[in-house]
Amino acid sequence: RSAQGKETMAERCAVQGREHDLRLLSTFAGALVAARGHAAQQCQASSPHSTPQRPGTSAPASPLTGPQTPPHSKHLSRRGNRIRQHQGILQEGYTQYHADKHGENNPNGIINMGTSENKLCHDLLHKRLSQPDMVQIQPPMLQYADWKGHRFLREEVARFLSHYCQSPSPLKADNVVVMNGCGSLFSAIAAALCDPEDAILIPTPFYGVITEDVGLYSSARLYHVHLSGEVSGICEPPFHLTVEKLEGALNRAKAEGVNVKAVILVNPHNPLGEIYSAEEMTSFLEFAKKHELHAIVDEIYMLSVFGERNSFCSVLSHDRLPDPQRTHVMWGLSKDFAMGGMRVGTLYSENRHLVEALDHLGYFHCVSGTTQHQVARLLQDRAWIDWEFLPENRRRLQEAHHYLTTELQGLGVPYLHRPVGFFVWADFSKYLRQPSFSEELELWRHFLRNRVVLSCGQAFSCSTPGWFRIVFADQESCLQLGQNLCFLSLAFCV
Amino acid sequence: RSAQGKETMAERCAVQGREHDLRLLSTFAGALVAARGHAAQQCQASSPHSTPQRPGTSAPASPLTGPQTPPHSKHLSRRGNRIRQHQGILQEGYTQYHADKHGENNPNGIINMGTSENKLCHDLLHKRLSQPDMVQIQPPMLQYADWKGHRFLREEVARFLSHYCQSPSPLKADNVVVMNGCGSLFSAIAAALCDPEDAILIPTPFYGVITEDVGLYSSARLYHVHLSGEVSGICEPPFHLTVEKLEGALNRAKAEGVNVKAVILVNPHNPLGEIYSAEEMTSFLEFAKKHELHAIVDEIYMLSVFGERNSFCSVLSHDRLPDPQRTHVMWGLSKDFAMGGMRVGTLYSENRHLVEALDHLGYFHCVSGTTQHQVARLLQDRAWIDWEFLPENRRRLQEAHHYLTTELQGLGVPYLHRPVGFFVWADFSKYLRQPSFSEELELWRHFLRNRVVLSCGQAFSCSTPGWFRIVFADQESCLQLGQNLCFLSLAFCV
Repeated sequence: RSAQGKETMAERCAVQGREHDLRLLSTFAGALVAARGHAAQQCQASSPHSTPQRPGTSAPASPLTGPQTPPHSKHLSRRGNRIRQHQGILQEGYTQYHADKHGENNPNGIINMGTSENKLCHDLLHKRLSQPDMVQIQPPMLQYADWKGHRFLREEVARFLSHYCQSPSPLKADNVVVMNGCGSLFSAIAAALCDPEDAILIPTPFYGVITEDVGLYSSARLYHVHLSGEVSGICEPPFHLTVEKLEGALNRAKAEGVNVKAVILVNPHNPLGEIYSAEEMTSFLEFAKKHELHAIVDEIYMLSVFGERNSFCSVLSHDRLPDPQRTHVMWGLSKDFAMGGMRVGTLYSENRHLVEALDHLGYFHCVSGTTQHQVARLLQDRAWIDWEFLPENRRRLQEAHHYLTTELQGLGVPYLHRPVGFFVWADFSKYLRQPSFSEELELWRHFLRNRVVLSCGQAFSCSTPGWFRIVFADQESCLQLGQNLCFLSLAFCV
Repeated sequence: RSAQGKETMAERCAVQGREHDLRLLSTFAGALVAARGHAAQQCQASSPHSTPQRPGTSAPASPLTGPQTPPHSKHLSRRGNRIRQHQGILQEGYTQYHADKHGENNPNGIINMGTSENKLCHDLLHKRLSQPDMVQIQPPMLQYADWKGHRFLREEVARFLSHYCQSPSPLKADNVVVMNGCGSLFSAIAAALCDPEDAILIPTPFYGVITEDVGLYSSARLYHVHLSGEVSGICEPPFHLTVEKLEGALNRAKAEGVNVKAVILVNPHNPLGEIYSAEEMTSFLEFAKKHELHAIVDEIYMLSVFGERNSFCSVLSHDRLPDPQRTHVMWGLSKDFAMGGMRVGTLYSENRHLVEALDHLGYFHCVSGTTQHQVARLLQDRAWIDWEFLPENRRRLQEAHHYLTTELQGLGVPYLHRPVGFFVWADFSKYLRQPSFSEELELWRHFLRNRVVLSCGQAFSCSTPGWFRIVFADQESCLQLGQNLCFLSLAFCV
């Protein structure tokens, strides 16, 4: 009976799916024709020379922010108004998404393939987190504790990182700081290393929210190291980072009078999926040392490499770091354990002064004692991690990645083939009438009208228009996106 | 056998306790003699006229911070150094406490009666939080969610506050913001309402950490409304707040060119234990309205009133607020549900602009999805709250309060008799050689040498020296403190 029930539900879903497809096809055809006309008008107005717009040192001014920016509030301070009025370039899409989410009860709702989340492993997590060891309530868990995280958790994180990062000697719990997510860590680190208006170097494209992470509370700003999507050499992939590019950007910053305090290095990279070799990372860290910059190394996707050959190498595995006092390594559970909602990020730093400053700010970013307990149990359970979660998670990521990349290949859409993370970085520039960011935004709006919210390159301060980050770590969305991509290509071929 | 085992353990504890007493008595006698000599020297040096030091608009410069302030770090920014070097006046005590905590394995360790925590009800909480409904893991709990808190929790908070605050009409979930503690709420509200260096009025004495809450990230400062411990009228208790005192302080602030944006009103008050009547609160809110100040009303102890006649009345119960757009009400689980380690604070505000600004900052202060679920279940369980937790919690608070106040009466130490919260505000000025804050600090150090860390008035910016906040919500500590107080009085009578 249960199996029968499931079959009936599966049939019903299939029928719903087909109806959905038909509705989409007809509405999309009309929307596209209208939109293409509008886009052509816009392009003429905003890009007379059809040259790519190069985003500046801050996020590019968005054509979306104008009409949607809330008016000045007399109740808030200037800062309060700035915070409230802050809008990411994709705000329009997420506002629509939150009002009309795709789901069981809303099969025609918007599918979110813009947020980098892994929704493939809820069953595994549900099973593990429902075990009785997860609800052992000890008095210290309910009491005020170390704002950097309970000692039991920091010890567990040190053991975990020592093992999975293959550190040459055991990492120390004293060097671990736990906060409610890596966004909070970025905010607190920016407050500790930068004075307001000081800058942090970051290669573009990059996960755009980091702009808010360092800017919203701490008023630090990012200085972009623009990497190009054009392939300049035979051996160099697009958007490849080199020390020369870092040096060039730092020189420009200095010439502009910008006070650069640090550099952010994300490995494996979001959205590029690039994995830097130990030699490359060392060269970047040598660059940081040479200029007395702090290196904030974000390794939050380190266990989400699903290729057969895993070339990832944590900087914590290096025998010798160029400047250990200025090297700070971030990791967290949001990506590798598919639980962004748990809000747990970790920092490893040998710099006592930084750790002490973060200790003071930790009060604003601390994690509930019961959650710290759950996370410690999870990290402790190596059998579950090594034999259940990681292999199955990688298998599912691999499968979803394969599904999406096959669709992209079928459409002849170039993409960076990198078996890591939850997303593919793909070049849709052939669908742009002109290589401009306003055309890119129009294409992004087309996807949105087609009920899929994605991330377009300009949200990541990409300097080459036409690139999109597509998150595939969701079976259903992946399937639907495949269909929508087909519709898109069909409609554009009309 | 189990009962026998318990008896043996109880006997062992009693023996240990007696041994502890004897050790304390002998070490304390010697320490006191040395300390008194030192104190006398200090008083001559720092208070030639023996007049009380009146703390300024910021926390009084502490004789403790000098030698202990860490040196400037070349790795941190000016702001980072300021954050790292920030030291509360009681830091010395807490540093010693954390290195040498009293506990089963360390019976001679330091007892913390400075931190306002309720440790009386762990058994009740343990039982409830271990129920199976606490570990229901749903997908949204592990995913990125509304940064203001999950809808299910905000709805539960709205229902809870409607009921326990006796609001005239149901409160709305849209007006609820959930963050990881009220400290985070203070920080985010200060960022939204104040520009750096803007000020917030606060009557003194007050829970001193609020200074860091609004200052550390948000660079807002507190402007003190000094209430005196001297009884000026027959009907007016010491430290009583009136509109006249608020007006006076606001005028002084304006004369000094200080830009005041808001006023903080704590009810029931910490550390005074005072409960303001509906009429008093209305008069304070009218004052705020008249001057276009935001009123941040902190009601975090609202359910911890254990007197037979509970006169507490939430501003959310008022039929009409003078300025609802500028009235923001804070509550949380740290005090009333004895779980500061869960890090859950709530705000209720009808001001959409403020709520939207907090939404943006909420990313840095959000609570794990699993904790939000646990809290929602707890708030939902009215049978447990009304028939198990609240009555038993109040009974135990009452009992511990009675124990401590009986000791104080025995010693002839005046205190404010208010059956609310976890602490008693007591006047030890008769033990000061001179009415100065350096003498108060010496007395605080005497308690610390006697293995008890307390809060002295200057940590709360109190303008009358000699007052201490003593936290009693811990059976064992209460007992031990009683003994230590006796030693103290004996030693002083030598």
